[in-house]
Amino acid sequence: MAVGELPLPEFYPIQGVRLGITSAGIKRVGRQDLVLIEAAAGSQIAATFTQNAFCAAPVQIAKKHWQTNTQGPLYLLINTGNANAGTGTQGLEDAMATCQGVAKLTQTPVESVLPFSTGVIGEPLPVEKILHALPQAYANLDAHQWVQAAQGIMTTDTRPKGASLCVQIDGQNVHLSGISKGAGMIQPNMATMLAFIATDAKLDAQILQKLHTRAVQKSFNRITVDSDTSTNDACILIASGQGAHLQSEAALQAFQQALETLQLALAQAIVRDGEGATKFVEVCVEQATTEQEALQVGFTVANSPLVKTALYACDANWGRILAAVGRAGVLNLDVNQIHIWLNDVCIVEAGARAASYTEEAGSQVMQQEEIKIRIALARGTVHASVWTSDLSHEYVSINADYRS
Amino acid sequence: MAVGELPLPEFYPIQGVRLGITSAGIKRVGRQDLVLIEAAAGSQIAATFTQNAFCAAPVQIAKKHWQTNTQGPLYLLINTGNANAGTGTQGLEDAMATCQGVAKLTQTPVESVLPFSTGVIGEPLPVEKILHALPQAYANLDAHQWVQAAQGIMTTDTRPKGASLCVQIDGQNVHLSGISKGAGMIQPNMATMLAFIATDAKLDAQILQKLHTRAVQKSFNRITVDSDTSTNDACILIASGQGAHLQSEAALQAFQQALETLQLALAQAIVRDGEGATKFVEVCVEQATTEQEALQVGFTVANSPLVKTALYACDANWGRILAAVGRAGVLNLDVNQIHIWLNDVCIVEAGARAASYTEEAGSQVMQQEEIKIRIALARGTVHASVWTSDLSHEYVSINADYRS
Repeated sequence: MAVGELPLPEFYPIQGVRLGITSAGIKRVGRQDLVLIEAAAGSQIAATFTQNAFCAAPVQIAKKHWQTNTQGPLYLLINTGNANAGTGTQGLEDAMATCQGVAKLTQTPVESVLPFSTGVIGEPLPVEKILHALPQAYANLDAHQWVQAAQGIMTTDTRPKGASLCVQIDGQNVHLSGISKGAGMIQPNMATMLAFIATDAKLDAQILQKLHTRAVQKSFNRITVDSDTSTNDACILIASGQGAHLQSEAALQAFQQALETLQLALAQAIVRDGEGATKFVEVCVEQATTEQEALQVGFTVANSPLVKTALYACDANWGRILAAVGRAGVLNLDVNQIHIWLNDVCIVEAGARAASYTEEAGSQVMQQEEIKIRIALARGTVHASVWTSDLSHEYVSINADYRS
Repeated sequence: MAVGELPLPEFYPIQGVRLGITSAGIKRVGRQDLVLIEAAAGSQIAATFTQNAFCAAPVQIAKKHWQTNTQGPLYLLINTGNANAGTGTQGLEDAMATCQGVAKLTQTPVESVLPFSTGVIGEPLPVEKILHALPQAYANLDAHQWVQAAQGIMTTDTRPKGASLCVQIDGQNVHLSGISKGAGMIQPNMATMLAFIATDAKLDAQILQKLHTRAVQKSFNRITVDSDTSTNDACILIASGQGAHLQSEAALQAFQQALETLQLALAQAIVRDGEGATKFVEVCVEQATTEQEALQVGFTVANSPLVKTALYACDANWGRILAAVGRAGVLNLDVNQIHIWLNDVCIVEAGARAASYTEEAGSQVMQQEEIKIRIALARGTVHASVWTSDLSHEYVSINADYRS
């Protein structure tokens, strides 16, 4: 299941960035499961990685290689079908072996290769299959294969996810293209699911990382499907530097905004395709004292199994929303000041059922596929949103059947 | 669904405590839904209440009355079918009206009456029905009606829950009897679901509260069905003082142990009857530096939807357990030291799949109804357990159908 239609966009190719796809037969024969992304010499890479203490072998190596300054082109190697997580020392050796395969093929130092894996946890990575398939991925590197790459990184996703933008900054066209994957084990924590984004803009490396981190905090770090943080999350931003050179404060702000728009689209695409999702829900918390407080309430509501099953049942069960707000751990919360809306229907005023509320109005909102739960805390002026899906029978079926 | 058989025990009557049951027709005509408990003059009452900021009207009034010193007998009035939560000022007035009904009937001050409600959130309490039924509950007060009272406080529970003990302390028999209810919206936070416990022991009031709070922390505060903390939780301990007078340190320790045993039995009975539960699971975290740390890891694993669906599927999915441990927020966790067992089968050693592990052995454990997940952190010497159930299709069905 997935919420609404969400076709892939027309991708703008990014000067200096090429993508190669092939089938290594990692989990299923014939499946396109191996993606190689090349960033030309001179590219900058910004990155965020999972904060899960059990971070997977490829994440550990990608982090290390990313921190090493190398000349020449950079390569991202991504496989699906196997997460290479919980695999101990062997896992690290296996991830390194695939990096060495790319290094040899491309005549670059091994530190130029960042590995990424997604799929089942705890199985040994089939290194031979990957090494065997690499030359084909390298041979078909092409700037126009974003669609194929989006398909090549899917796991339990029911559809590929991508976004692409062209914005005018300082009179020059700046292009951004990105792909993401993920449907379950989704509550990225200061990191994200797998997402790969590229731009042709030229930016100072430190500024690029700052803009990237800020955008991730406002997009991927505000979604949850099931409150579980993956071992393999990573979000990579390549700036090839072959296009507009952005330096002024105004230009950087414009770029930040474009980057946030793109990342939010990719993050929301993950929620819309959340495992078993039948609803796409924004939980917007207003009148909070701090962003942290707003997010705390937002995530408590978004992760409540009782709120999520009520959403699935199209039941305007405001009592469960109220109970979740009440247990979110906000100090000295005055519950008699709280207002809650479902889209435009006020369901709670001053901490109790709104006088104007009718079951019929609530029920009408709940029939919709996209719902906004708006919670006003009457404490301050800060607001923040998180995005989530519902908890359906299919979520249970998928995770009782699939071995992640 | 519920895990295993769990018949009610033979209840020891408690000198000084009587229970009356009747049908007020709150949600369904004919259902026994109103319970009155009388504690004779001289009784002490210890209590813990929900920490949910949206605590229900009856909880607010019960707290206030509990803090008032009154002479004479005390009364607990408990209704099921309606939680009187999220009902604003009207809810407070309604709860007070039922207290006044009891006060008038029993010729006691209104502060002697503590109200408790459980059931649907946000509906007005049918005060008239309750007032009409009260005389019958009062008329049939009897020390031998624990079974009927356990049935009279059920909501989505599939069976009544109770425990009863007689222990010898200082050569005297001390009796403890208790009942509890709850199946969903269960992660009591420094409080509990509805539970009513009585003893004939005589204890100093401050000591009684201290022993009660400690027992609650080790029992009701260590269970979770779905991570949601109810608006109406309360756990009440009545000491009628008509039996043994406990004063020595050794006597108090013996009483503390008996109380913990009883409360843990009641708390575990709630988990065994967790909504849609097919498994009863202990998550035992060992070698932690603090109890807080052990509980943090325990609850993260116990609340993970991915771990819970794997339990439902009888899938020994150690990768999901490992991922949950990794995101539990333990600072400087060395994942390469971690060991995990399912009952006696070692599944993870030194952070990766155990060499001795076979799918067959894992699968055999997972077929069982009762499973112990043991996680050794290799950081310290403290251990603590939490108890939980699995996440099944029936949990979704129950909560998509039932309006809590």
